[in-house]
Amino acid sequence: MTRPIRYGMVGGGPDAFIGAVHRRAARLDGEWTLVAGAFSSDATRSRAHGASLGLDPSRAYGSWVAMLEGEAWLPADRRMEAVVIVTPNHLHFPIALGALEAGFDVVCDKPLTTTLADAEALVTRSRALDRVFCVTHNYTGYPMVKEARERVAAGDLGDVRRVVVEYTQGWLRTLLEAEGQKQATWRGDPERAGPSSALGDIGSHAHNLAGYVTGLAPTELFADLGTVVPGRALEDDGTVLLRYAGGARGLLTASQISTGERNHLRLRVYGSEGALDWLQERPDRLRLVAPSGVETILYDGVDGLSPRAAAHLRLPGGHPEGFIEAFANLYRNVARTLRTRRDGGGGGPFDDDFPTVEDGARGVHFIETAVASAAAGRWLDAGWSPP
Amino acid sequence: MTRPIRYGMVGGGPDAFIGAVHRRAARLDGEWTLVAGAFSSDATRSRAHGASLGLDPSRAYGSWVAMLEGEAWLPADRRMEAVVIVTPNHLHFPIALGALEAGFDVVCDKPLTTTLADAEALVTRSRALDRVFCVTHNYTGYPMVKEARERVAAGDLGDVRRVVVEYTQGWLRTLLEAEGQKQATWRGDPERAGPSSALGDIGSHAHNLAGYVTGLAPTELFADLGTVVPGRALEDDGTVLLRYAGGARGLLTASQISTGERNHLRLRVYGSEGALDWLQERPDRLRLVAPSGVETILYDGVDGLSPRAAAHLRLPGGHPEGFIEAFANLYRNVARTLRTRRDGGGGGPFDDDFPTVEDGARGVHFIETAVASAAAGRWLDAGWSPP
Amino acid sequence: MTRPIRYGMVGGGPDAFIGAVHRRAARLDGEWTLVAGAFSSDATRSRAHGASLGLDPSRAYGSWVAMLEGEAWLPADRRMEAVVIVTPNHLHFPIALGALEAGFDVVCDKPLTTTLADAEALVTRSRALDRVFCVTHNYTGYPMVKEARERVAAGDLGDVRRVVVEYTQGWLRTLLEAEGQKQATWRGDPERAGPSSALGDIGSHAHNLAGYVTGLAPTELFADLGTVVPGRALEDDGTVLLRYAGGARGLLTASQISTGERNHLRLRVYGSEGALDWLQERPDRLRLVAPSGVETILYDGVDGLSPRAAAHLRLPGGHPEGFIEAFANLYRNVARTLRTRRDGGGGGPFDDDFPTVEDGARGVHFIETAVASAAAGRWLDAGWSPP
Amino acid sequence: MTRPIRYGMVGGGPDAFIGAVHRRAARLDGEWTLVAGAFSSDATRSRAHGASLGLDPSRAYGSWVAMLEGEAWLPADRRMEAVVIVTPNHLHFPIALGALEAGFDVVCDKPLTTTLADAEALVTRSRALDRVFCVTHNYTGYPMVKEARERVAAGDLGDVRRVVVEYTQGWLRTLLEAEGQKQATWRGDPERAGPSSALGDIGSHAHNLAGYVTGLAPTELFADLGTVVPGRALEDDGTVLLRYAGGARGLLTASQISTGERNHLRLRVYGSEGALDWLQERPDRLRLVAPSGVETILYDGVDGLSPRAAAHLRLPGGHPEGFIEAFANLYRNVARTLRTRRDGGGGGPFDDDFPTVEDGARGVHFIETAVASAAAGRWLDAGWSPP
Repeated sequence: MTRPIRYGMVGGGPDAFIGAVHRRAARLDGEWTLVAGAFSSDATRSRAHGASLGLDPSRAYGSWVAMLEGEAWLPADRRMEAVVIVTPNHLHFPIALGALEAGFDVVCDKPLTTTLADAEALVTRSRALDRVFCVTHNYTGYPMVKEARERVAAGDLGDVRRVVVEYTQGWLRTLLEAEGQKQATWRGDPERAGPSSALGDIGSHAHNLAGYVTGLAPTELFADLGTVVPGRALEDDGTVLLRYAGGARGLLTASQISTGERNHLRLRVYGSEGALDWLQERPDRLRLVAPSGVETILYDGVDGLSPRAAAHLRLPGGHPEGFIEAFANLYRNVARTLRTRRDGGGGGPFDDDFPTVEDGARGVHFIETAVASAAAGRWLDAGWSPP
Repeated sequence: MTRPIRYGMVGGGPDAFIGAVHRRAARLDGEWTLVAGAFSSDATRSRAHGASLGLDPSRAYGSWVAMLEGEAWLPADRRMEAVVIVTPNHLHFPIALGALEAGFDVVCDKPLTTTLADAEALVTRSRALDRVFCVTHNYTGYPMVKEARERVAAGDLGDVRRVVVEYTQGWLRTLLEAEGQKQATWRGDPERAGPSSALGDIGSHAHNLAGYVTGLAPTELFADLGTVVPGRALEDDGTVLLRYAGGARGLLTASQISTGERNHLRLRVYGSEGALDWLQERPDRLRLVAPSGVETILYDGVDGLSPRAAAHLRLPGGHPEGFIEAFANLYRNVARTLRTRRDGGGGGPFDDDFPTVEDGARGVHFIETAVASAAAGRWLDAGWSPP
Repeated sequence: MTRPIRYGMVGGGPDAFIGAVHRRAARLDGEWTLVAGAFSSDATRSRAHGASLGLDPSRAYGSWVAMLEGEAWLPADRRMEAVVIVTPNHLHFPIALGALEAGFDVVCDKPLTTTLADAEALVTRSRALDRVFCVTHNYTGYPMVKEARERVAAGDLGDVRRVVVEYTQGWLRTLLEAEGQKQATWRGDPERAGPSSALGDIGSHAHNLAGYVTGLAPTELFADLGTVVPGRALEDDGTVLLRYAGGARGLLTASQISTGERNHLRLRVYGSEGALDWLQERPDRLRLVAPSGVETILYDGVDGLSPRAAAHLRLPGGHPEGFIEAFANLYRNVARTLRTRRDGGGGGPFDDDFPTVEDGARGVHFIETAVASAAAGRWLDAGWSPP
Repeated sequence: MTRPIRYGMVGGGPDAFIGAVHRRAARLDGEWTLVAGAFSSDATRSRAHGASLGLDPSRAYGSWVAMLEGEAWLPADRRMEAVVIVTPNHLHFPIALGALEAGFDVVCDKPLTTTLADAEALVTRSRALDRVFCVTHNYTGYPMVKEARERVAAGDLGDVRRVVVEYTQGWLRTLLEAEGQKQATWRGDPERAGPSSALGDIGSHAHNLAGYVTGLAPTELFADLGTVVPGRALEDDGTVLLRYAGGARGLLTASQISTGERNHLRLRVYGSEGALDWLQERPDRLRLVAPSGVETILYDGVDGLSPRAAAHLRLPGGHPEGFIEAFANLYRNVARTLRTRRDGGGGGPFDDDFPTVEDGARGVHFIETAVASAAAGRWLDAGWSPP
């Protein structure tokens, strides 16, 4: 029988968008169960929210510190096993470190931290403590992204020469933060968001996606970051020119002022022998293009997908799976990894297919380097290795 | 707090496609909880499957009869409240009737029954016993289908003049049933599927979708049904010409031999003042066309959707929701209806937005009439009113 | 050197849409030259229009009879060689017959005639007189339609099983003919349009397209024709169920009241081993679908197209060719056929790839049979052989 | 009556792609007539090609110098009026200058010249001599590009904030020039192409398109140019970051090694109040996006287009016009301008809507500045004013 993993959540109160996504993603396959939460720094609110989620009242805590302590007192077979962190960015580090030190595995939203030093500390500690640590760069959970990765790895595109990844949204075309819109307010505040808004919030996904699919890491970059909407503290539009190992040229865009764009994350990879194209808003589809210009369009569920892609689908072709399903693929793989570690058994071939703390730190390094390049107006070394 | 509805499932064993969909749809929003099951007529298999789903072993039954009896002995606050039926078609009737008579509400897959007489009996009994009965014509659960309905109802299209609904698949282009493929075998067997394959399996969805969006019912029809693959017992390709109340002309296609089609359900409605177009494989999108030819494309999550559509979305624009989310909208609305009936309270404005036993019976009537028209080679009266 | 073919035009005055299309199509490749015209039954108007086109004033005639006579007096090396007929339907027959008898080759718009008897007479006479006779079912001039034909002929789709061709427009959603709109007025007048409006005007193109691509002719049909807009004399919306030789099932739609549709001609062919899909509003693209659901998209100008398709392209991939270019392919092939007949030489392999008087007559037979079926409310034999 | 403009062509021999395009574009509307040519530096070849085009043998010249001289001797009513230059880039300057000085108007392919000094000399001389000079940045000839321009000018997008223009092709993914492919050979040779390949050949179109639609000129730029295919002399992939007057941020890509891309020219403009999107490979369509994410799709020929767009269409909606038609719009406007200058009359409101020698020089300046920026690795001033 599938034993659900017991988790506690930090953040994700009633107004939060991403907390509910994490809970649905965790719930979808029945492999996780929510047992504790510190949903708000206001204990009453946290308790009320826990109740609405059917939590035992004693396990809806008023702070993450209280949750770590409270759960530690519970017997091992009731105690939460993992902590899910869905707070604003600046809190990721202390909570994640606390959870690791207290003996819990971690699932943390992105960007991992607001400084590279913090990110590297999490890499070091999670390794030393032998904890599982997933950073939810969720877009790599899509089956067709996995198919793309397999196609590149199999050499179907030849040598990768040009990588174009754009992540554009339009929701910050006005100064929403001045109106007190909650999502905009903390994302636009350097104290809570870190040194970057557009790059940190969405550019880090684009960076992760390109790396996952191509298997390549940037070696140099030149960034041009701008604040288009007057009165905003951080950049809301940025372009990064990249050089990848092996010489491929890259172009990464992150923009939150691209009016009318909803959640436009698109990756194109051009190789010496072919190209691929994937768009998050049409995620069931992977476009492969031959040198001749003839296109092959693969869809979720068609025959002939790679085992990796097929293993991350729940439905036959023509039955659209979406954002929650892709997000759930991360949760499912983490759950399976955790179960294998605890219950033994061999595990499945793709159980380790989720973004790790190293991936998260790589993203933080990318953000810091881009911010520095934009400030200096020149190309910078973009290489990073785990500490 | 949200009290999950306790349900028992009949059918939905390890090889079944649709059972797992129902379970995920029920699970997604945390408003249902599986407490019992008769997953197989083989008690050992049923028990093993129940265990894999985390069920109490005593509540994994060897037959639906045993489940109805066993659950009746449990205290009211543990006993299942509703029965979900995901068996082959011919079993829908006895199980649904048994569940109703034993005091349970019902969620049943489509087509409701294999004969109109059975369907009408379920309508009559569920009404007499005051039970909630949902038939999972799940495609009306999509937010953009709901938006389409609201647009027609608001008169944006003027008078409806032409309705084109096509549901085509290619998976039965070969005689799969001769190879023992389980899904194909029972669907192709008149004993289990009823008098129709393509129309019953997918045409009934198309019929339901067109009725939901336009608010119109057919008054006359002419059907042309054919068996394209030699050796097949039932039709695998059919076209139905329709006249709707008010004079609109309709065209409904159901085909399982349209090679390469995955799950192509598309509805186009042409009115005197505009048209709309929705495609299930791109469900986040609703195309509205003005007489000028200018198109307006609405997407899940954009501003300006109707309250009905907006109420059935979980994510902001650009975050694709899919088949499971649409299916879950039926489950969520049924759960809310059930909770309001039991716990009181006013309920929400769209809680009753799910297909009922009358909708299911209307679909069975449509199938029977189409089969009769094809046999007679002439137009037949297609009107139906609930008994 | 390329010797342009000298032609005279009947119809195509200043307000006519299709006359200007024919002239541009003839002009595009430099293989035709306009030398005479009877553009209007008003001699002054005809002359003025001829002048605007740069015609010798003596060759802008006040009637087609005058043109045939006047041109006959000119020396052979100045005289027009072919007559292009772009009048309302009811005039096609007398003019075409007159042109044939006077020794001219003919290019005639569709539908060929308003009665089958007239059409068959043109077949018989053009054969007896050994004249070239092209009927401008122009949609088969598109390169990707030719590619589709070659793919079917090569067996890439296996046995053809299902043919869906729809030609829908919205321009007649109101009673334009009551407002004196010229195009609508004659098309809605049985005296000038013949027994059908939607089927004759656009359904005949759909019928021709399906036949060209599949190589199949209907053997039986059932038609459902309707007049949606009150006050209209002829049908404006029709559906025809078809059986093709070999057993394939077909569905043909012609509608002029499909609000918002511009010129939506789409052909889908499903075979036992694959499917194809072509849309006139996106004519550079041919979608091929494998049984797996994987799509291959071919475009104008990509490597690997058939010689037939490639021979009808003027530009490399990515440089869109459109309606006029496709129309011009008919003119080019007719010109080459005529030059080979007169000047000798072997001609090119695709010079005969244009719709002939037999194709035109086949279309007229289809219209007559559909009108009869709709009136009778039953299936009719749809076979036709040239007289 | 429409008096065709008599022109002579330099270049455009039998193997040339673009020469035949110019001739078809000139021919389409009957407003130009080819009377002379210097198609090849080999007099025999030039004569043979002239013959195939139906030219008087005495007017197929062995050099452009001979053509300018020979035509000068002809009487004014026979003599060519304009020179069309379709040679490799390095010849544009001497031929254009010669034509201007000899009294002819000029239509010249792009880039205008290989140095800014030459380009500015042509601006100065054509102004001094009062000649009409069109540089065929043909993509602005598309009706939907004109609609885009009108929408921006009308303020529908609010303030322009972000401009993304990409022009990518894949045909140079291998070292075609080493195989002697003619088009690749001269484009890859600095002697004939000038200092740039990708930017000069296609980036200059992208630059022109963005300027035409937005009405904005770059003030600063940073370029990153690379040679991806080993052995190539000039850049085959480039990205340019831009600042426009008013502060808008821009991104321009020109790539010839984007495997599988055919002729992918796409422009997106994001304003404070809306966005637009146009793709050359789907030129009949203009996508407008509201801040809400709702899209409005306009098509060629729909009601409600601006007078400018409507004036450049030949067919009703749903009848695709393509590359040649857009190119022909330049020729038509130049012809009308020339006729008005010679024959008098008021001319039409859009007769001057074609790219001029100033536009051509602006493109050459852009290329030079980008090449310099890439060499320097820093932002450069990008402003240019006509001399």
